[in-house]
Amino acid sequence: MEKVTLNVQGMSCDHCVKAVEGSVGELNGVSTVKVNLKANTVDVEYNNQEVSLDKIKETIDDQGYDVE
Amino acid sequence: MEKVTLNVQGMSCDHCVKAVEGSVGELNGVSTVKVNLKANTVDVEYNNQEVSLDKIKETIDDQGYDVE
Repeated sequence: MEKVTLNVQGMSCDHCVKAVEGSVGELNGVSTVKVNLKANTVDVEYNNQEVSLDKIKETIDDQGYDVE
Repeated sequence: MEKVTLNVQGMSCDHCVKAVEGSVGELNGVSTVKVNLKANTVDVEYNNQEVSLDKIKETIDDQGYDVE
């Protein structure tokens, strides 16, 4: 299991939290995802045999947020 | 038909726009509702025989935003 903290810009409210946590959380191989609005971060625990970090970043990007 | 511009705090992203426009737009008697994110305003056209301004304000408040 891998752990990563991504810096993500543009998350501004509870709806954004739900959009990111919901979409990333649905990916196979992701066990936990937690947005910190104030820190502009997303903590993700995932199995890199099942899902790539690129896929996780792409999923966040697809919701309209910039992953740094 | 009445027209009102409400000052609303806390709307920060497109999800907020959808939450406010969707909920107010569903009220009987509301013909148009338009959020301006930059101005922190919500323009509403409504029939005051069918819906009260208080009901409109309450609906926005229920979505988690502060109507001034």
